[in-house]
Amino acid sequence: MKTFLTTTALCAGLIAGTAQAETWNLQSTYPGSLPQLGTLGKRIAEQVTKITDGEIELVFQEPGAIVPALEVFDAVATGAVEAGWSTPGYWAGRVPALQLLAAVPFGPQAGEYMAWMKFGGGQDFLDELYEPNNIKSLPCAVIAPEAAGWFRNPVNSPEDLQGLTMRFFGLGAKVMEKMGVSTQLLAGGDIFPALELGTIDATEFSMPAIDLNLGFYQVASEYYFPGWHQQSTFFDLMINLDLWESLDESTQFKLETVCDANLAFGLAEGEALQFSALQELEANGVNINTLSDEMLDALQAAWEEVAAEEAANDADFARVYESYTQFRENYAVWGELGYLK
Amino acid sequence: MKTFLTTTALCAGLIAGTAQAETWNLQSTYPGSLPQLGTLGKRIAEQVTKITDGEIELVFQEPGAIVPALEVFDAVATGAVEAGWSTPGYWAGRVPALQLLAAVPFGPQAGEYMAWMKFGGGQDFLDELYEPNNIKSLPCAVIAPEAAGWFRNPVNSPEDLQGLTMRFFGLGAKVMEKMGVSTQLLAGGDIFPALELGTIDATEFSMPAIDLNLGFYQVASEYYFPGWHQQSTFFDLMINLDLWESLDESTQFKLETVCDANLAFGLAEGEALQFSALQELEANGVNINTLSDEMLDALQAAWEEVAAEEAANDADFARVYESYTQFRENYAVWGELGYLK
Repeated sequence: MKTFLTTTALCAGLIAGTAQAETWNLQSTYPGSLPQLGTLGKRIAEQVTKITDGEIELVFQEPGAIVPALEVFDAVATGAVEAGWSTPGYWAGRVPALQLLAAVPFGPQAGEYMAWMKFGGGQDFLDELYEPNNIKSLPCAVIAPEAAGWFRNPVNSPEDLQGLTMRFFGLGAKVMEKMGVSTQLLAGGDIFPALELGTIDATEFSMPAIDLNLGFYQVASEYYFPGWHQQSTFFDLMINLDLWESLDESTQFKLETVCDANLAFGLAEGEALQFSALQELEANGVNINTLSDEMLDALQAAWEEVAAEEAANDADFARVYESYTQFRENYAVWGELGYLK
Repeated sequence: MKTFLTTTALCAGLIAGTAQAETWNLQSTYPGSLPQLGTLGKRIAEQVTKITDGEIELVFQEPGAIVPALEVFDAVATGAVEAGWSTPGYWAGRVPALQLLAAVPFGPQAGEYMAWMKFGGGQDFLDELYEPNNIKSLPCAVIAPEAAGWFRNPVNSPEDLQGLTMRFFGLGAKVMEKMGVSTQLLAGGDIFPALELGTIDATEFSMPAIDLNLGFYQVASEYYFPGWHQQSTFFDLMINLDLWESLDESTQFKLETVCDANLAFGLAEGEALQFSALQELEANGVNINTLSDEMLDALQAAWEEVAAEEAANDADFARVYESYTQFRENYAVWGELGYLK
């Protein structure tokens, strides 16, 4: 019996050794307190730690804790951080085609977008576009639609947009430029002071629950829907590619699985959070508005121009957009038939 | 060195012992060859085995392999099988309220339904309703809309339904009874011969990719949309409750995570599979039809009668339906605003 106990004690050490516990930093581009955008990243950090039985301890890092938000791409590529929590749409300056794997104006809802990502070629493009940058990307959250934005005064027609200065993200920003808006990309925390000071006239950021959290209703009263520029948005877990390839298949599978699980959880949460946030915004005097058909038609026409220009400027963008467009044309046959109007 | 090697060899045995590898049977109510309904169950069996590093080897069993499809409930409850792959909607005879946690006529799409399940109280009802039956249920797949069904002849108005004999599932069957249809619930494999022999005049089963697989187009040519009775459908991993409670928290977490991941995967797959199936059905001479507004209005009115009757007959049904209805009323404010029409 004594021998057995001794062996057991020795084994405990060996088992711990076998597990090769590692600590990874997850540099986030969103504050952990932000509903969905931040909380889903914190959730992933906890879940990776739990599903690997602590073999990988993933530690969520607030924006700037290791590198600034918009330097996450380089930090993951070089291995300065092991992992990043972001959206492919932030890296337009590096790889324009990645924008199509984040959120597309007049684009699909979450179910259709996930269908293209997993079964229509999206994930293959994601692998191909990140690979030369030494990054592995797992789609790790998808959220419900955003709002079209916050304005100080009503915008009833395309003319009302001209000359405005507005915070805007991604491909939608290029559409707004066509409408005569001057756009800039500010991180979440910088928007409120800019709007308060009048540096910008208007902003979009995200969905009601998130926009409520950021307090925009205190400095702008006109809130517009639907969010034509982001009917759904993907976020990804970025991992240094050398590190990813050094993992055994079982660990890779566990990371893929927690990300898929986060897709379902985040989508459900996003759909559940908005109506009480809308009530609270209305109670705070916000006017909830719907964009006119005239406005939506003008925005859609502008988007088509932007898409053609982006495709002409970048061969990868053209290839990804072709796949995306073909999938959507096919899907439309089913989408029209299958759903109650 | 020799001592170390001996200890390592001893440890290998101890580690295997620690893992307490168990084999569980997963009795399915759907054949493994059936797209989505079967393949998602097989996928879950493989994933549970993989995510627990073989600690639980979950073995998919074809319908009837251990017990017949419609006896899965009792088999899991008693522990005759460790787990079952099914939909809560099959157990209407035991717990009528479980139908509301599977698919509801004129009910929500997958995003909204998952929101109610995870954040609106659905999972709590699922726990509460299965618990006295000694079953733990994890929502483990949700699929895109079904089709309204297959008919030999066109059904243009409510009068055309009267007197038909039709295979139908769940609460939708009670709606069809109100329309003068005589319904019966047949398992997937029994439908084709019944339709061929004329025992039934019509059938619904599932979505185009699945219905194509079952060959209904060979014996009926009129295919109707949208599937008003199942705009999305939940499937669950049922586990014997004593067994579930004996698992450590880490293993429970792994099972919950593979189920959440399967929700996202199955929804994406369902959205991706239908358009090529529709093309193939059309190439085989099927007429793809849309139900008239008159028909949909009559079906909706009949559903409202059915819902009121079910609630009057069963207190649990009434409580769950109240929660579901309240959530949908709140959600509608957001659903109308957030999405492009």
